[in-house]
Amino acid sequence: MAGRKKIDAMLVSARSAARAMACIDKRLKNAALELMARNLLSSRKKIMSANGKDIKRAEGRLSRAMIDRLSLNTSRIEGMAQSLHEIARLNDPVGEMLDFVKRPNGLVIGKMRVPIGVIFIVYEARPNVTSDCIGLCLKSGNSVILRGGSEALESNKAIFEAMDDAARSRGIPRGTLNMVADKDRSIVDYLLKQNRFIDLVIPRGGESLINAVTRVSRIPVIKHYKGVCHTYVDASADLGMAERICLNAKVQRPGVCNAMETLLVHRSIAGRFLPKMIAVYKKYGVEIRGCPVTRKIVAGVKPASELDWYTEYLDLILSVRVVSGTSEAIEHIATYGSQHSDAIVTEDERSAAAFLRCVDSACVYVNASTRFTDGNQFGKGAEIGISTDKLHARGPMGVEELTTYKYIILGNGQIRKQG
Amino acid sequence: MAGRKKIDAMLVSARSAARAMACIDKRLKNAALELMARNLLSSRKKIMSANGKDIKRAEGRLSRAMIDRLSLNTSRIEGMAQSLHEIARLNDPVGEMLDFVKRPNGLVIGKMRVPIGVIFIVYEARPNVTSDCIGLCLKSGNSVILRGGSEALESNKAIFEAMDDAARSRGIPRGTLNMVADKDRSIVDYLLKQNRFIDLVIPRGGESLINAVTRVSRIPVIKHYKGVCHTYVDASADLGMAERICLNAKVQRPGVCNAMETLLVHRSIAGRFLPKMIAVYKKYGVEIRGCPVTRKIVAGVKPASELDWYTEYLDLILSVRVVSGTSEAIEHIATYGSQHSDAIVTEDERSAAAFLRCVDSACVYVNASTRFTDGNQFGKGAEIGISTDKLHARGPMGVEELTTYKYIILGNGQIRKQG
Repeated sequence: MAGRKKIDAMLVSARSAARAMACIDKRLKNAALELMARNLLSSRKKIMSANGKDIKRAEGRLSRAMIDRLSLNTSRIEGMAQSLHEIARLNDPVGEMLDFVKRPNGLVIGKMRVPIGVIFIVYEARPNVTSDCIGLCLKSGNSVILRGGSEALESNKAIFEAMDDAARSRGIPRGTLNMVADKDRSIVDYLLKQNRFIDLVIPRGGESLINAVTRVSRIPVIKHYKGVCHTYVDASADLGMAERICLNAKVQRPGVCNAMETLLVHRSIAGRFLPKMIAVYKKYGVEIRGCPVTRKIVAGVKPASELDWYTEYLDLILSVRVVSGTSEAIEHIATYGSQHSDAIVTEDERSAAAFLRCVDSACVYVNASTRFTDGNQFGKGAEIGISTDKLHARGPMGVEELTTYKYIILGNGQIRKQG
Repeated sequence: MAGRKKIDAMLVSARSAARAMACIDKRLKNAALELMARNLLSSRKKIMSANGKDIKRAEGRLSRAMIDRLSLNTSRIEGMAQSLHEIARLNDPVGEMLDFVKRPNGLVIGKMRVPIGVIFIVYEARPNVTSDCIGLCLKSGNSVILRGGSEALESNKAIFEAMDDAARSRGIPRGTLNMVADKDRSIVDYLLKQNRFIDLVIPRGGESLINAVTRVSRIPVIKHYKGVCHTYVDASADLGMAERICLNAKVQRPGVCNAMETLLVHRSIAGRFLPKMIAVYKKYGVEIRGCPVTRKIVAGVKPASELDWYTEYLDLILSVRVVSGTSEAIEHIATYGSQHSDAIVTEDERSAAAFLRCVDSACVYVNASTRFTDGNQFGKGAEIGISTDKLHARGPMGVEELTTYKYIILGNGQIRKQG
């Protein structure tokens, strides 16, 4: 119960800091971000030694890939500092005025962009999430409560400390930055019920984490479940371009959510495109699972099951289907996709327009790799996550997506006459 | 279970209609809205006779005020038709392109406004909510599932029928408009768990309805709990204007969420302002509950308890507090308010700016009555509700607030090089 009391005090101070942060001078925030970047570099040794402890504990318990994600080195810490500099240089969205109109009665009505308030981020693995989230929440004027995975506890604590020191010495209100370093899992469930104090929850991690959070939370959650991303190669595609895009989307980094899982090919070019494309994939070690038509065109391809079309492999596996045209491709994506990122490769403007209009995914591409779905690639400096939800924010979420608005109504004595 | 099967079929068809609606020609939607308006007028007698049944059943069971809210007459039906005409004339938000930027690698990234999908509206009492919700959801390209209160069942069915006929004869996809006319309450709980088929829930009604919906829902909910609205009369206020605004905000229609519940007055003008203001209120039958300073200035005022500052009276009762200045007013609103609508009356630009910046409510007013927080008054034709949530939409929600966006990324063969 002593722990609970400390948590309650943290909630009260995070709420009150959020109110102060909404009105703070943007130069203060940017100065804190710059100092945070410098502190990360000057605390490099301390952070790497803390990271060493996490890695030592992880060895034998976590996979090679997981340990790689967990590991920090000088260049990764420099990358974290670099992101903070980029965030400092972004436009400050808080206080921005939007969409003003003048009503017939003389009232001037518009929107002012404001911070959301208190944001609770539950995440796993990569320690750079700690610095990205602190940077984005600070810039957007929000208080943040961080709860990282236990496997990165020491690293996260060291990063947090370096950044919190910077915030305090630059006059950021106490209570703006918070980390729950307690390993007790019941604290997360307790926090997920504090809708009086927390405005938004962002879980970042595997499906089981996200399900656990959404099941318990009484606070709005923005999340992404999975990325079953498609690339559709249209009849009119530049086949050289299609090959480069399809290769990149699948193999450049297969373990991430914006990598392609299913390739859709127009039947009129399948005979020319697929043999060469699949030969290239084989060179890169990609296992192909095809529809019956694909298997007729290219010998030795395994059959895709109904389940394959729904699957996020996160691995060098690709399902391939030949379709009758753009409509069937759109239909396939609507049925099996996860509304994350989907691309068309085409030289036909009408196909492109139909695809853009009718594919209901967070990111819809024409003639580019789905691998660009990323806050940094979108010019946001970093990202707090990628939303596959439909409300508030979709796709990569940066500083702007961590704000909301309020209506501002300017009058000169107007009163309501009727109704 | 037969009922359950019918509900499941409705969900599938609503989801599929939503996909079709996202790509439909805007002229079709507007033609349907115009015909709906005409059908409401030509079905006037049928609707009023259905309404008569509801009223007959309600007599003796509901309050006079509730029965008044339930009652339809020619002028109210004309008002419903008028709103539909206004909605038809609004800009179509679907397909709007926003915030395009060109990245250094040549990618063009922007947002396209799109419908949310399937919207479930649970509401009580007023039958015009039925026509407003259908109009706004249709215009914004969403499918809608309506579940009105049992007290208005016959009226709602008659209104729905007239509008659904119009939609069908203008080629709106089947499944776009849905009404659950079954009185079985367990259907609502069942629907609130269908997050695969429904994207957003909007409850409109009393606090108990809203609590019941948020407790059960696995779907994002946008709602407003209550309106504890404040007017702060600053030291520099034009006291004549302040009197008109304060009178209007309290008495013009005290039973609604945007009516004022608490008056805050700067101490330097309290002695001049309060005696006259309270005398006017008394003339209008308003009961005053004051802080100690108020009670010293005006004799015979009841004391306000701590609980009064939190209370939404929805009645001719007003709590009054004298404060030391704008900061204390802002502090009071942050502590006791409901983030709905709050106003300052002032001639001082710095006070106005501080109030606008630091009061975190959906609608923040300078020199106007809080009674204007209303979709129609904001130029939205009608409203689907007023949000006191912080995500996605705040304040009056019209057609634009029933949309979301997706990212559109236009390339010419870009692939991701690193990271």
